[in-house]
Amino acid sequence: MCERIWELFIVLTVVSVAATSARADDALPSWNDGAAKRSIIDFVAKVTREGGLEYVAPAERIAVFDNDGTLWAEQPMYFQLAFALDRVRALASKHPEWKQKQPFKAVLEGDLKSVLAGGEHALLKLIMATHAGNTTEEFSQTVKDWLTTAKHPKTRRHYTDMVYQPMLELLAYLRANGFKTFIVSGGGIEFMRPWAEKVYGIPPEQVIGSSIKTKFELRDGKPVLVRLPEINFFDDKGAKPVAINQHIGRRPIAAFGNSDGDLQMLQWTAAGKGPRLCLYVHHTDAVREWAYDRESHIGKLDKGLDEAQKRGWTVVDMKKDWKDIFRFRNLTK
Amino acid sequence: MCERIWELFIVLTVVSVAATSARADDALPSWNDGAAKRSIIDFVAKVTREGGLEYVAPAERIAVFDNDGTLWAEQPMYFQLAFALDRVRALASKHPEWKQKQPFKAVLEGDLKSVLAGGEHALLKLIMATHAGNTTEEFSQTVKDWLTTAKHPKTRRHYTDMVYQPMLELLAYLRANGFKTFIVSGGGIEFMRPWAEKVYGIPPEQVIGSSIKTKFELRDGKPVLVRLPEINFFDDKGAKPVAINQHIGRRPIAAFGNSDGDLQMLQWTAAGKGPRLCLYVHHTDAVREWAYDRESHIGKLDKGLDEAQKRGWTVVDMKKDWKDIFRFRNLTK
Repeated sequence: MCERIWELFIVLTVVSVAATSARADDALPSWNDGAAKRSIIDFVAKVTREGGLEYVAPAERIAVFDNDGTLWAEQPMYFQLAFALDRVRALASKHPEWKQKQPFKAVLEGDLKSVLAGGEHALLKLIMATHAGNTTEEFSQTVKDWLTTAKHPKTRRHYTDMVYQPMLELLAYLRANGFKTFIVSGGGIEFMRPWAEKVYGIPPEQVIGSSIKTKFELRDGKPVLVRLPEINFFDDKGAKPVAINQHIGRRPIAAFGNSDGDLQMLQWTAAGKGPRLCLYVHHTDAVREWAYDRESHIGKLDKGLDEAQKRGWTVVDMKKDWKDIFRFRNLTK
Repeated sequence: MCERIWELFIVLTVVSVAATSARADDALPSWNDGAAKRSIIDFVAKVTREGGLEYVAPAERIAVFDNDGTLWAEQPMYFQLAFALDRVRALASKHPEWKQKQPFKAVLEGDLKSVLAGGEHALLKLIMATHAGNTTEEFSQTVKDWLTTAKHPKTRRHYTDMVYQPMLELLAYLRANGFKTFIVSGGGIEFMRPWAEKVYGIPPEQVIGSSIKTKFELRDGKPVLVRLPEINFFDDKGAKPVAINQHIGRRPIAAFGNSDGDLQMLQWTAAGKGPRLCLYVHHTDAVREWAYDRESHIGKLDKGLDEAQKRGWTVVDMKKDWKDIFRFRNLTK
């Protein structure tokens, strides 16, 4: 009897050790073996090895991620722009003047080309008309409602399913190793917060982005924050390190981006003392996702690609390095 | 022999149980028993009781603290103003023009009355001259250096020893119960971050405050953030809920302040659904600290005191509710 218990004990131990190793190997199952995956695993091993020369205390394990094109897709247009266009259509009946007024007229006529031809000024008008004038709580609800119904024009999937499965694994892997993960995006901070915790496991206080101004008011004695049609902060390029300093107050040791808009964030991260991981996601897969870089209007990666090569940063070749791309593949399995 | 071991075991068990109870009772040893202490303990018990009607998940247990007058003293002047005056003196040799120029002339002549008579405009000039023009790393080092030498004019103690022992216990007690503690202060965000983690156990990413603008620059290829002489955000009154929304993105369930500048933060906290703790520290102890409220130029508590009484918020009577006031009493024990 006693021997059989020992046998059982040994079997259980072996099974449990095997399961543990499998888990460790499989932290990034959607990543193909190669230089990119290796650079991530080596970096994490290095900074978490207690007593090691390159050990970094957990409090300093700050990792920052761009969102559009890094954590979820950004083609054929930023998803937040799709939201703004849908909001113009939804609000049109309350704004009869929009039928005669650009850029709203073009949106209502489905003439996206004219909208985009209006440049930044036109887009800003759309953002202000659709993102301001409500309270923070109302806006958050509007974003949540939109996400439950809106579908991506190409994949017909919900936008929050168009996040990259390999990046979800990377976020979870870093957190399992004591990292605090932040989003630092050009996208709207209040556009991302309503769903970032559920989709990415990133709580609102770790989401940083662009914003419009808000104002505290008492409405019938009830305090509200009203969203004003005025830019507060545009979180792109050199403003990303500014935002990191403002919100986090420490320099990250790892930074992940996909465009020239992320270059200064990667430079700022790289310039700290000690081990650093700087990584660019390079969109190279025209079949499973999109292929674009130096000439693209959205997510242009030109200077960043040169600097990555010069400095030996990790460049993820989506086509080669990612076994799987989207979360929805995983959802339908 | 065996019996003696049992006896020893029982003795050890009794001692250890007693120690555990003592620890639980003693989470707030510097607080006298009374309504204030009871309101804190009841609130924490309520929101942490799993399965209870008023249970709050750990992620939502956000507690926000004002700093000046709430976590550390603020008399006879805000400690950051003492820093600015010391910096004017330290930088004077590089600015010979200050000898003829107000408000610098008054500072150099030790004429504090004239400095303060210059009002907000004069103070802003002092802040810009002493807080801008350097990089974020340089400024952080300057603050650290100052704190190691500067002494409070009345107590002759380091400023970071003039934090309130009962509030240190409260911060630790909340964190031990799954709360995330934040500072939301009118003081400078980069003036507090260099020491808040060591003194309060609050990491930089949970320190929110006023700020000047910064700019990303490459200096000889090295990225730096340069501090500009331009206000970015003044974190007082209605701006506190704005800052909470911007940095945290969720509504706190507990808020702690001491002045009318904190009123909107307490209102914003109170207006959420579910259990809430709003607490004012009332400076009533002219012997051990300072006594001031409705008529004070620093830390004026007038409207806030009325609203606290009207709404049944907790008001801490420093003289009655705090067994001990300063951390340095504790340090010398």
